Amino acid sequence: MIIVMKPNAKQEAIDHIVQIIRSNGLEVHLSAGQEVTIIGVIGNKTKLADKNLEIADGVERIVPVTESYKLANRKFHPDSSVIKVGNTTIGGDELAIMSGPCAIESQEQLMETAFAVKKAGAQILRGGAYKPRTSPYAFQGLEEEGLRYMKEAREATGLAVVCEVTSLHAIEAAVKYVDMLQIGARNMQNFYLLKEAGKTGLPVLLKRGLSATIDEWLNASEYIMAEGNPNVVLCERGIRTFETATRNTLDISAVPIIKERSHLPIIVDPSHASGIRRLVKPLAMSAVAAGADGLMIETHPNPTCALSDGPQSLTFPQFETLCEELRPIASLMSKHF
Amino acid sequence: MIIVMKPNAKQEAIDHIVQIIRSNGLEVHLSAGQEVTIIGVIGNKTKLADKNLEIADGVERIVPVTESYKLANRKFHPDSSVIKVGNTTIGGDELAIMSGPCAIESQEQLMETAFAVKKAGAQILRGGAYKPRTSPYAFQGLEEEGLRYMKEAREATGLAVVCEVTSLHAIEAAVKYVDMLQIGARNMQNFYLLKEAGKTGLPVLLKRGLSATIDEWLNASEYIMAEGNPNVVLCERGIRTFETATRNTLDISAVPIIKERSHLPIIVDPSHASGIRRLVKPLAMSAVAAGADGLMIETHPNPTCALSDGPQSLTFPQFETLCEELRPIASLMSKHF
Amino acid sequence: MIIVMKPNAKQEAIDHIVQIIRSNGLEVHLSAGQEVTIIGVIGNKTKLADKNLEIADGVERIVPVTESYKLANRKFHPDSSVIKVGNTTIGGDELAIMSGPCAIESQEQLMETAFAVKKAGAQILRGGAYKPRTSPYAFQGLEEEGLRYMKEAREATGLAVVCEVTSLHAIEAAVKYVDMLQIGARNMQNFYLLKEAGKTGLPVLLKRGLSATIDEWLNASEYIMAEGNPNVVLCERGIRTFETATRNTLDISAVPIIKERSHLPIIVDPSHASGIRRLVKPLAMSAVAAGADGLMIETHPNPTCALSDGPQSLTFPQFETLCEELRPIASLMSKHF
Amino acid sequence: MIIVMKPNAKQEAIDHIVQIIRSNGLEVHLSAGQEVTIIGVIGNKTKLADKNLEIADGVERIVPVTESYKLANRKFHPDSSVIKVGNTTIGGDELAIMSGPCAIESQEQLMETAFAVKKAGAQILRGGAYKPRTSPYAFQGLEEEGLRYMKEAREATGLAVVCEVTSLHAIEAAVKYVDMLQIGARNMQNFYLLKEAGKTGLPVLLKRGLSATIDEWLNASEYIMAEGNPNVVLCERGIRTFETATRNTLDISAVPIIKERSHLPIIVDPSHASGIRRLVKPLAMSAVAAGADGLMIETHPNPTCALSDGPQSLTFPQFETLCEELRPIASLMSKHF
Repeated sequence: MIIVMKPNAKQEAIDHIVQIIRSNGLEVHLSAGQEVTIIGVIGNKTKLADKNLEIADGVERIVPVTESYKLANRKFHPDSSVIKVGNTTIGGDELAIMSGPCAIESQEQLMETAFAVKKAGAQILRGGAYKPRTSPYAFQGLEEEGLRYMKEAREATGLAVVCEVTSLHAIEAAVKYVDMLQIGARNMQNFYLLKEAGKTGLPVLLKRGLSATIDEWLNASEYIMAEGNPNVVLCERGIRTFETATRNTLDISAVPIIKERSHLPIIVDPSHASGIRRLVKPLAMSAVAAGADGLMIETHPNPTCALSDGPQSLTFPQFETLCEELRPIASLMSKHF
Repeated sequence: MIIVMKPNAKQEAIDHIVQIIRSNGLEVHLSAGQEVTIIGVIGNKTKLADKNLEIADGVERIVPVTESYKLANRKFHPDSSVIKVGNTTIGGDELAIMSGPCAIESQEQLMETAFAVKKAGAQILRGGAYKPRTSPYAFQGLEEEGLRYMKEAREATGLAVVCEVTSLHAIEAAVKYVDMLQIGARNMQNFYLLKEAGKTGLPVLLKRGLSATIDEWLNASEYIMAEGNPNVVLCERGIRTFETATRNTLDISAVPIIKERSHLPIIVDPSHASGIRRLVKPLAMSAVAAGADGLMIETHPNPTCALSDGPQSLTFPQFETLCEELRPIASLMSKHF
Repeated sequence: MIIVMKPNAKQEAIDHIVQIIRSNGLEVHLSAGQEVTIIGVIGNKTKLADKNLEIADGVERIVPVTESYKLANRKFHPDSSVIKVGNTTIGGDELAIMSGPCAIESQEQLMETAFAVKKAGAQILRGGAYKPRTSPYAFQGLEEEGLRYMKEAREATGLAVVCEVTSLHAIEAAVKYVDMLQIGARNMQNFYLLKEAGKTGLPVLLKRGLSATIDEWLNASEYIMAEGNPNVVLCERGIRTFETATRNTLDISAVPIIKERSHLPIIVDPSHASGIRRLVKPLAMSAVAAGADGLMIETHPNPTCALSDGPQSLTFPQFETLCEELRPIASLMSKHF
Repeated sequence: MIIVMKPNAKQEAIDHIVQIIRSNGLEVHLSAGQEVTIIGVIGNKTKLADKNLEIADGVERIVPVTESYKLANRKFHPDSSVIKVGNTTIGGDELAIMSGPCAIESQEQLMETAFAVKKAGAQILRGGAYKPRTSPYAFQGLEEEGLRYMKEAREATGLAVVCEVTSLHAIEAAVKYVDMLQIGARNMQNFYLLKEAGKTGLPVLLKRGLSATIDEWLNASEYIMAEGNPNVVLCERGIRTFETATRNTLDISAVPIIKERSHLPIIVDPSHASGIRRLVKPLAMSAVAAGADGLMIETHPNPTCALSDGPQSLTFPQFETLCEELRPIASLMSKHF
């Protein structure tokens, strides 16, 4: 931690800061420049967490030097994590393909989708039973009934299954049926939910919040991991910007940045990132080329009748073609599926 | 709802859309222009919610014409709402001043603050017992113990009290102690929590999400109101932008825009919007001048020792001075406190 | 300047950096912590401008400590500047009111407007002769003919006049007719234009770019001032964010932030910030309450026929009423007009 | 164009709008719904450009239906454009690789770079002679001397050369030496400069502004094309968002969106988009996979001594390796170089 003093900071002000730091058992390095004095703090800075040095006399600003996330930090865990989900893994040589409908609508719809996406190459079935919708008047999901269909689809196809949870109640139901919990973008900083998901020990797919920085996202994963659950997979799904041509802006740079800062696997969701079916293919291709460990892609037996997010869902033939097109590029990146 | 067709849309494609609309009991108005054909839909568009016309052949885009929020919409409720909170009201002639510490740290701290802010003119005491913090290693709040201190402070001073809730568990505790529930920015689209807060019937202070549009914010309020609870107060607390000089960017325009679109009261939180103590006064002044119904301002007996958000908290003398300075400007806006 | 080394940086890497710094005549302060080593650089850091230490072995990142703008910096010029424009000043006790049409359309239109805004209290007439328009097919301005009308209006009313310039050609014409040059938001980082405007010696109204940080804005003002022209007035006119309810988002916090960082006056343009006539009043009120030195407000004899920005322009009676409403709030802020 | 009336709009207000439209020679289609009335306008809407119907009585909002750019619009030019630059083309089967230093520093530096990038496979040499820098105290470029070095490098290597221009003065110099003009991000809406670049007839590389929407970008290209110059190549170089982990956020979706909306070629600049050397490879890979027609990549003989943007520049061996890695992915996209 570095404390930058104001140009006109008085000597007493500097001495006061130094005294606070030392009295908390930390060492100080003073750099008195022509224009400003800089105070470097050596040691565990959390000892100063409640000291609010920003507002002490003469202080201009505080510059943090180390990240607040530790368990997710590659600095302390240099090897990439490989997360087991059902019979498959994410983060290793396999490109993880998650696919399925935005919302589970019926047993038939889900079962048909499960067989179709498995045939095309997906290893994981996705499907929403608890839908966070902007308007309270939109379809809110089948809840536990939907989870039951997920389990049936898993048993029939051998696919691993992942489902979003939006409350403790939903978590308690989901653990009975699914292989992986999803925390959606809108709940990325629902810290209560993160902790409860962490406690289950199940792998957690943590979507990036619409306006979350990469550091906030990694801190959110830390909430899950701090509960003793190291099984976190990150999912980039677009951030909110001024551009309205796409629903969100896919932050493709997040893939290599996460790879640098963290050992956790990262997948990309081109369906939600764009909200446009025609963009799913180019964005999926680019995600694999950028080094993503997997993709989440919405599919539906009949997108024109989907109860949620139809306009961004692929038909089964479209999905199968996409998988064919992805394989050579995955192969270039030393991935397969 | 308006459907804009592609320039080269075939007649069959247009006929197909028209047929779908009519078969759902809605009327169609066709405008065939030189370049494009436009299809206006008359009637209750929710009948088309699962038709995904965006991806029908020949469709370029869909333009919504009416808002999806109804209960919060001024079009259907032209009179401004006045919300009762404890012994005071928000949205009427009184400028609502909520003040107190970011986090409740002890009984003494809270009681001392309660008396100080009351003396300066505040009608409502705020204080966090459940703290959503970016890092799991930061102070997370006193939980129910903090709520008990809130109730004691209420009884001692007569102030109304408001506390953030972050889970159903927290709501169940809070209803026993406080006059108003707060939903924080990070939970603005935690729809499960919104519904549960709605069910309590208590007034709810709904903070705007960091990257929520005004329409999403009003839709979030609709989740609370759709549970039969009309007692919602909105709180603008800054949005996330590219600018880093302030922690967030106070969207002052949200005040008049909310006044136009909704009948709900709106207050402003200059402490969280800026994250800088020196900016609290100018932003508070500007919020009142823009027509806000109240302010939420963080205060602390000793900001340099605050466990959370010390750098943006005012001391009691600073708060008292601010209240003095706010009165003449409130008076110009026909408000008093 | 602070150099933060990577946790695993080797001693040779640290020695290498230290040697580069010392060989450039600068002093070094080393802070070797448990996790990381920090290198403080004392002295004129511009000596290292071409050293690109960010990519030297073992370096994690560089943290600048001092601002790159000097002439605009309040640290070196503690007294607020008062800028003379025609017969009036900006930055002193007077609240500067600039008003007039977005685009000059005819001599009659401009003259009528000049008399009307003067009567209401404005001291400065604005009007665009060179219009930067998103589409090349929109009205582009009367150019020098418009400037001539400005001069005539100045002579007839005694108002000072300000006009946007978009090229060296426009500057060369404008200096013959106007009291103040305006650099628009889209040209805020047209550094060539900034230098040329600086050379004229005329006061320059520098609008903030749509996505310019406050630091970039002050650096842009530095381009003008570095040409020996200290007469810069800043104008906040809204930044681009995700919110679409208003054309831009007025960053009201920019007013107190600029007041802290710089000695230059700052005015606010609520017309462009919102793009909505109904918001001009509340935003103008809030700007004055936040401490702005003036306002720029679009007016037009008949906004429904304006060739540019009609929807945000006030009629003369609306402007006169607004001025009446602004006076008491200006008075509270110790300003008058 | 569609005019949405307010729910309570009076019949006279509707009649008034209809009358204005008809008196301008346009047809009207009225859709009177339960809640609102919608007025469709058929014909050339530019006839209504100065009518400001947004502020007419009873009007809620105006929804544009057609784009304002015509020459750049794929609707009217379905075939993709292939732009000739020196001896190479952009937009055809060849993947265009532009490389070179951010700033031209000396004849030796440029010549050495030209031979190195040509050897690796680049067809176009880039280099800045007029540098737009945030601070006036940073290196501003060699100007015409730099252009001369560009011409010499072209003659020695056969590479086409592209250079940024920032003023009419720079354009007048550049046309004597280079094959392609570049308009930088900060000048994307410097409409005067766009027109002047258009008049030269030389191919123009138009970088996207930091906060420009895709529609504004295409409108900017329209300024060049409206001067009779169809030779425009677009360059996505990152947009400004809240994320600070990268200098800008590469909007990879812009590639397929531009391909849909326009016939113009689009290339990607991963160096400026990220500002981080380590990200150049993954972003370059993803750009090609998304369908880009080319790449612009900064290289420097010795990045640690570069006068501008060293931290994002590749060494020659790094660039050569990158080109090797790009070839198989280019081949998958039916491109070669």
